[in-house]
Amino acid sequence: MYINTKGARKFCESLFAAYGFSTGESAVISDVLLKADLYGIESHGIHRLSRYHDEISSAQVDVKAKPQIVHETAISATLDANKAMGQLAGIHAMKIAIEKAKTSGCGFVTVRNSNHYGIASYYTEMACSQDLIGISMTNTEAICVPTFGAQAMTGTNAIAFAMPAQPYFFSYDASTTVVPRGKLEVYKKNNQSLPDHWALDINGKPCADAVTVIDNIISKAGGGIAPLGGMGTIHGGHKGYGLSIIVDIFTAVLSSGLTSNYVNRKIDHTGICHYFMAVDYGIFGEKESIKNNLSKFLQELRSSKKAEGHSRIYTHGERAQEMMKDRINGQIPVNEKTLEEIKTITKKLNLSDDEFDSLIKDCA
Amino acid sequence: MYINTKGARKFCESLFAAYGFSTGESAVISDVLLKADLYGIESHGIHRLSRYHDEISSAQVDVKAKPQIVHETAISATLDANKAMGQLAGIHAMKIAIEKAKTSGCGFVTVRNSNHYGIASYYTEMACSQDLIGISMTNTEAICVPTFGAQAMTGTNAIAFAMPAQPYFFSYDASTTVVPRGKLEVYKKNNQSLPDHWALDINGKPCADAVTVIDNIISKAGGGIAPLGGMGTIHGGHKGYGLSIIVDIFTAVLSSGLTSNYVNRKIDHTGICHYFMAVDYGIFGEKESIKNNLSKFLQELRSSKKAEGHSRIYTHGERAQEMMKDRINGQIPVNEKTLEEIKTITKKLNLSDDEFDSLIKDCA
Repeated sequence: MYINTKGARKFCESLFAAYGFSTGESAVISDVLLKADLYGIESHGIHRLSRYHDEISSAQVDVKAKPQIVHETAISATLDANKAMGQLAGIHAMKIAIEKAKTSGCGFVTVRNSNHYGIASYYTEMACSQDLIGISMTNTEAICVPTFGAQAMTGTNAIAFAMPAQPYFFSYDASTTVVPRGKLEVYKKNNQSLPDHWALDINGKPCADAVTVIDNIISKAGGGIAPLGGMGTIHGGHKGYGLSIIVDIFTAVLSSGLTSNYVNRKIDHTGICHYFMAVDYGIFGEKESIKNNLSKFLQELRSSKKAEGHSRIYTHGERAQEMMKDRINGQIPVNEKTLEEIKTITKKLNLSDDEFDSLIKDCA
Repeated sequence: MYINTKGARKFCESLFAAYGFSTGESAVISDVLLKADLYGIESHGIHRLSRYHDEISSAQVDVKAKPQIVHETAISATLDANKAMGQLAGIHAMKIAIEKAKTSGCGFVTVRNSNHYGIASYYTEMACSQDLIGISMTNTEAICVPTFGAQAMTGTNAIAFAMPAQPYFFSYDASTTVVPRGKLEVYKKNNQSLPDHWALDINGKPCADAVTVIDNIISKAGGGIAPLGGMGTIHGGHKGYGLSIIVDIFTAVLSSGLTSNYVNRKIDHTGICHYFMAVDYGIFGEKESIKNNLSKFLQELRSSKKAEGHSRIYTHGERAQEMMKDRINGQIPVNEKTLEEIKTITKKLNLSDDEFDSLIKDCA
């Protein structure tokens, strides 16, 4: 099944407007969601509409909220998102960071009391498109078990970094867990055993059963996903564990918000926290020359000797940028179940069948 | 075998003075080295004297070099280390970053054309001891093979982060490879097979033979160590690969120095690059309150449920800080081979037997 890119944009904008978001807000939320689909990151695209519907309906997301600056300097701001939609808090915060970077060389913005903000790379690439370095992080509900632990204490805790380069800008966006929760869902759906080192049971022992692990995460019974580097220390799991703590520091500790172990999708506010940073790399020298340094290095990585059985080495962001070029004026593959979920939401919101159909057909 | 902490300090200071470093320079180089031994990071302590001896003797390290600012703003500086000893370049650069953080809220310093600088956490903890957040990174000679690659292209590429907290400040310091090269040396010495996912042969296939991998790294024949997350993408190796690129960006791309694939310990300059950052976290709110947020979170991590068979969960820096308390007025265990190497250097430099003996005996 496929959706039409332009049609999907129109549909999403109508959907968010129906919740009470302004036309402008609906457009930017839709843009963040669709960029994930254009990049091939299905887990963060319109697949999430069902989750967002629940969060908006249960008032975890406050449609009328305006993020508010609670502390500010020439190079920094601390925001209380006041339960705003994560995408709106995120774009607002990164715009502040970019503004400060343009006037002061860098801008740091930490945000508390927000919600799921979609792909972290959306925000870093806002900076990148303005010829700046962009950094973003977000915490989430706890799913990651500390080294030698048996209880999830940190979140997926993604780190994203983007910087301009030719022909592909560099755009890193990855969780600090060995895999994000969505990967477990795929194994569950396919009835497959989880690979070693991915997940732990409630006693902190390896667990290959996706159903058990996901149930334990949802019920907060214990166990969860291993940090990047896996269980224990033999493959560097303590490094992933440390990186996940650093994400909670930038997002929650600095903003005086909720660390991952307090973020909760079952109560009236999730409390998710984010971090944004923009740096004008011209503070280190001549920009064209620095950008060329990066383009050259990335090309050397891509051109280096391939492993047997592999014909290509990627640099981060390259594959997504290629995929977007194919999809931007065309179609995006979509899971049948996702379409059904969206149809249900459409009905609940009393949107017409025509609106739903616009998802599929070309509205260019 | 043990060395005496105070005696070792006196010995190291005499040794570096004998190379031509000033008294002050010798003291700080010795301090960086010994802090590694006090923290239990044997690979970066006096074990390295033999390597430093070679680098100074072959003029890779220029004893008379003064790092020089080549670009500067209120919040940033780019330094050319002019082949200085890495520790001297590092301390100089972090002092600049700290100064800028105190006046402008943050300081970014990128350094090219330096040498091995010891433990990255030495520099982050300089900032931490001034009630600031400290960040440092360094590239190295290439040892890390990109995902789907067969040739080492990035270095050990450590990332360090420190921030004040009670009772243990948080201090993360880790390579972006699954293990650093030193771990392979230990397996080689013990004639053990390497664990899965640690290393690759010249065709990019898994290789469990430490001797082969080390020989290939030294001769630059191909292969090397896997990024954090291991080979391929199943355990997130592409994430470690991306983090190693980010380290090369901050250190080498921004400073217009040599990326890891050009760093070479066999030519007249290694070209190693570093990055330093200090942030006054008071730019985000009231400092005591933010510091308490961190202390509380770290305590919650340490107090969370332990895995079966484990009695303790650590936060980063905790174990090193405990070890240092034990060793600072006492002794440090040392490998017999290291002592022999140091005795050889002592002779080459025409230092007296008394100087060498001071390593062992109490000079308090």
